[in-house]
Amino acid sequence: MKMIHILFLLAILSSTSHAAVNDFCVADLTSPNTPKGYHCKTSVTAEDFAFRGFVAGNTNNSFNAALTSAFVTDFPALNGLGVSAARLDIAQGGSIPMHTHPGATELLIVVEGQITAGFLTPTGIYVNTLKVGDLMVFPQGQLHFQVNSGKGKATAFLAFGSANPGAQLLDLLLFGNNLPSEMLAKTTYLDVAQVKKLKARFGGRG
Amino acid sequence: MKMIHILFLLAILSSTSHAAVNDFCVADLTSPNTPKGYHCKTSVTAEDFAFRGFVAGNTNNSFNAALTSAFVTDFPALNGLGVSAARLDIAQGGSIPMHTHPGATELLIVVEGQITAGFLTPTGIYVNTLKVGDLMVFPQGQLHFQVNSGKGKATAFLAFGSANPGAQLLDLLLFGNNLPSEMLAKTTYLDVAQVKKLKARFGGRG
Amino acid sequence: MKMIHILFLLAILSSTSHAAVNDFCVADLTSPNTPKGYHCKTSVTAEDFAFRGFVAGNTNNSFNAALTSAFVTDFPALNGLGVSAARLDIAQGGSIPMHTHPGATELLIVVEGQITAGFLTPTGIYVNTLKVGDLMVFPQGQLHFQVNSGKGKATAFLAFGSANPGAQLLDLLLFGNNLPSEMLAKTTYLDVAQVKKLKARFGGRG
Amino acid sequence: MKMIHILFLLAILSSTSHAAVNDFCVADLTSPNTPKGYHCKTSVTAEDFAFRGFVAGNTNNSFNAALTSAFVTDFPALNGLGVSAARLDIAQGGSIPMHTHPGATELLIVVEGQITAGFLTPTGIYVNTLKVGDLMVFPQGQLHFQVNSGKGKATAFLAFGSANPGAQLLDLLLFGNNLPSEMLAKTTYLDVAQVKKLKARFGGRG
Amino acid sequence: MKMIHILFLLAILSSTSHAAVNDFCVADLTSPNTPKGYHCKTSVTAEDFAFRGFVAGNTNNSFNAALTSAFVTDFPALNGLGVSAARLDIAQGGSIPMHTHPGATELLIVVEGQITAGFLTPTGIYVNTLKVGDLMVFPQGQLHFQVNSGKGKATAFLAFGSANPGAQLLDLLLFGNNLPSEMLAKTTYLDVAQVKKLKARFGGRG
Amino acid sequence: MKMIHILFLLAILSSTSHAAVNDFCVADLTSPNTPKGYHCKTSVTAEDFAFRGFVAGNTNNSFNAALTSAFVTDFPALNGLGVSAARLDIAQGGSIPMHTHPGATELLIVVEGQITAGFLTPTGIYVNTLKVGDLMVFPQGQLHFQVNSGKGKATAFLAFGSANPGAQLLDLLLFGNNLPSEMLAKTTYLDVAQVKKLKARFGGRG
Repeated sequence: MKMIHILFLLAILSSTSHAAVNDFCVADLTSPNTPKGYHCKTSVTAEDFAFRGFVAGNTNNSFNAALTSAFVTDFPALNGLGVSAARLDIAQGGSIPMHTHPGATELLIVVEGQITAGFLTPTGIYVNTLKVGDLMVFPQGQLHFQVNSGKGKATAFLAFGSANPGAQLLDLLLFGNNLPSEMLAKTTYLDVAQVKKLKARFGGRG
Repeated sequence: MKMIHILFLLAILSSTSHAAVNDFCVADLTSPNTPKGYHCKTSVTAEDFAFRGFVAGNTNNSFNAALTSAFVTDFPALNGLGVSAARLDIAQGGSIPMHTHPGATELLIVVEGQITAGFLTPTGIYVNTLKVGDLMVFPQGQLHFQVNSGKGKATAFLAFGSANPGAQLLDLLLFGNNLPSEMLAKTTYLDVAQVKKLKARFGGRG
Repeated sequence: MKMIHILFLLAILSSTSHAAVNDFCVADLTSPNTPKGYHCKTSVTAEDFAFRGFVAGNTNNSFNAALTSAFVTDFPALNGLGVSAARLDIAQGGSIPMHTHPGATELLIVVEGQITAGFLTPTGIYVNTLKVGDLMVFPQGQLHFQVNSGKGKATAFLAFGSANPGAQLLDLLLFGNNLPSEMLAKTTYLDVAQVKKLKARFGGRG
Repeated sequence: MKMIHILFLLAILSSTSHAAVNDFCVADLTSPNTPKGYHCKTSVTAEDFAFRGFVAGNTNNSFNAALTSAFVTDFPALNGLGVSAARLDIAQGGSIPMHTHPGATELLIVVEGQITAGFLTPTGIYVNTLKVGDLMVFPQGQLHFQVNSGKGKATAFLAFGSANPGAQLLDLLLFGNNLPSEMLAKTTYLDVAQVKKLKARFGGRG
Repeated sequence: MKMIHILFLLAILSSTSHAAVNDFCVADLTSPNTPKGYHCKTSVTAEDFAFRGFVAGNTNNSFNAALTSAFVTDFPALNGLGVSAARLDIAQGGSIPMHTHPGATELLIVVEGQITAGFLTPTGIYVNTLKVGDLMVFPQGQLHFQVNSGKGKATAFLAFGSANPGAQLLDLLLFGNNLPSEMLAKTTYLDVAQVKKLKARFGGRG
Repeated sequence: MKMIHILFLLAILSSTSHAAVNDFCVADLTSPNTPKGYHCKTSVTAEDFAFRGFVAGNTNNSFNAALTSAFVTDFPALNGLGVSAARLDIAQGGSIPMHTHPGATELLIVVEGQITAGFLTPTGIYVNTLKVGDLMVFPQGQLHFQVNSGKGKATAFLAFGSANPGAQLLDLLLFGNNLPSEMLAKTTYLDVAQVKKLKARFGGRG
């Protein structure tokens, strides 16, 4: 009797086994990328849906900060699902400087310490001091920053509305390349000396 | 004179022949899938846009029901177009038990007999008795069912807002696998005996 | 004991009753429209999710055809769900002339008689003769037609990948307005006499 | 000199102050909802972008669990941004039973204790045991559960790919309403006695 | 010191170099197409983001018009970005006849001469006379035309809300194929003689 | 005879007149905004679809540049259509400094003079020198600039893949507000003196 039922279920929904493939599409990172994600792996296990590695990052550097990402390139099961996450550790006195995620809104959840965070728009700035249990949202593409404004270390989890939010640090964008310093000064109104100083710091030439 | 015109048209719209490729993208089902569909076939004919097979399904089984699908895996021309269809036959006394389509809204059109159908939400249930010429919509992802509540057979056509709506029968989800019966009982509040009974029926173990 | 559980469920998911509002958004057709649909009705019943009226249309006219629509403006529950449907009746010798749905793919399911249908693209035409149980898909925005090519009447159900697919009959677009006949002739290469003849037929002036 | 520059900037981008309104759209929860969200508030402050309240939920109930949500209805700044979050507390022995979010993928980040979580599909189940620092993704619309499988309490943060993910507990869907027990039994294959027992527990009638 | 900073930046954002790949996805036109675009090229230079060729088209033909396109097939950097452009040159007395872009809204900017343009809908026609510095928008999928209504040549730039808008000239759709003239007459209400005359002109048979 | 046809057409497509409303949705700018645009105006004329005003901007200022926008707030017919445009005039020696459009890709078409333009990403910069007839694309959210690098004035048309692309000038974001200079210096690595100098120039305090 049991077999009849099983066969029946397979029969009435003969497309299900195929169709179910689209319930998810774990990335085959060796495949070419497309505008909407990678090709789907043809075989998956439960472990594909887990990412193990949100441990405290090493903040023993001059910035006193570390970001551990779980983006689609780190966690292929996110392919096509439109979400990702990261862990942020900022030692006392540290900060994540001005940056944007061009294609993703960010949600920040403070789990330890105190973080002052904000984003800048043409018509106003929005800055909050966040304690454990506080959230802040940074709308898509807005320039924003996070500073450890408390005593001791601060830790937060970040969620993004994209499987691949990117992260563009303003200083690295401006000063990590070989755009001539004069053109950079002209298009930022920074002094040439300031440009050259930061190019030296962030690896740029010109 | 004719040729001049033709050449002219090709000239003024030299991209058209390429661009037209995107008017549709018939799936090459042998290609890898992506989050948004299969690769496009490079050569298509009129027959690619037809699906021939919405005949009465065989309901001579213990469920007295049959579902014939025209999803993208059955009808590759639907690739990327966001729609699909199915034919539903329910013999007298039969039913399509509780199920969901995680990624698609469903429209049901009754063409023969009488069907009592409904969907369940946290804040209310929505159940209707449908006769020939009646439609019902089941919003995306909602748990729903269809019962032949009339005399004689019932037939309906289904349209979906996805090329690959899937179909997840609740019983097959819950009882067709090897999740330990105790964990299943704990997370459904069903009695363990009930779980084991249905596992036996739907092919599960554990 | 029961009440404790219920209260608990409400407690652990206190947002659910609010959040569930978004499981659907039945249109309040008296509200202003937006690019993505109407405002949501604040109170709904099961009957909101049913549309009763896919009976045979009256084809006793010079075109021998009738179309009965279940678009969002007819069936407000479709608001925001991205699907709709229609019933098509074509008496012997009748046809639905060339038309487009600018924002929606169409699926046609023949349920009685025989229909010859096709769509036209810059690089090829795709025409099929469809019998009972056959489907055809017309990709979004393509110019297409349906002709009763059999004996007796023909009936089909249509599904659309939009809650509001529109329907633009080519003749009504071209000849139902007051665009000057000379400009219309210039931009269609039709003879002015032909333009004037069809303007007279389809209600245009100029 | 300064004023000239400022005036110039306003002049060259005279639309910016208007356009910037769309960088975000904090919900006016008193406005009617639409399929894509609420109307935008016309005046916002930094505090609109913060949500303060992810404290430990009260798990002193028969389920030993609590969920604190930051959905758009709780945190209006999420309107239109496609993300939201929740905090999950499960005391030892507790669990969040089978449920779905019809319109959202879920990411779970374990921050304390151990959680065994899984989702069920027609072609396989995906269950993982997660410790502090582990993530798991539950693709959109899939039936899933979370169990505290460790010693002591467990806490996790959840991120969703929707501003309003909803949360549909299977038991509440099935047993919290007045669908007749016989119809429910027929469409779930559960025994009528089991149905009645759970209806009593979850507040259903019939 | 500099190296420490650089290494740090790479460390705190170790996914960035991967993630940034998705900031754009220049098409590899030799790859298979998908419903949402081509595969991404793995190596790009600045020149990939430039298209050089919006010179005056050759209007020395019987239509006195030319269209030069910068669609994704011409300008692969547009892949996945949802925009494209074209240059339109119309000599005195010329016109771009009735046509549609099934998947894209069009914006027209007049830069020389005078153009009378319009689109046709079931409920009204919208025709404007446009001079240098005037814009007009043609909503997605609407049938529209452009006529040089001034003295001397007219030039316009077109922008589209799709990387691959296509361009379907009505005459080429109707008369450039082998659909039998009788069926074409039946589905357009054109006289058969008119159909045959235009088939001869636009390369159709039958 | 004519009336019969007209009545018939209205009859067979009785929803068309309603449905066609959604072929476009001209913004009522006095209505509340939503995440996807404004309410639709209930009455429109041809003139609603035209924008007249892309004349040369006044570049007689210290920046030698002007931008004239045709965004949805300037041109309400763009509501919901996902495209917009702008005209850019840069006198000799002028420039549009570093800026982003958080929600839109930009296409630039040079129509006079010579422009050197580029965008900056974490993994490379993409700079081109563009002459009349050249295009460049700036993918969504990327930091970019335009400099008149030729002799005499330069003019370009811009197209955006959003009806409301915004425009965020980096200097105005950073230096036009009252974020304390020390925090700004900390999160940009600029010297405090540089920050204060630019705050004075761009209207910021603190």
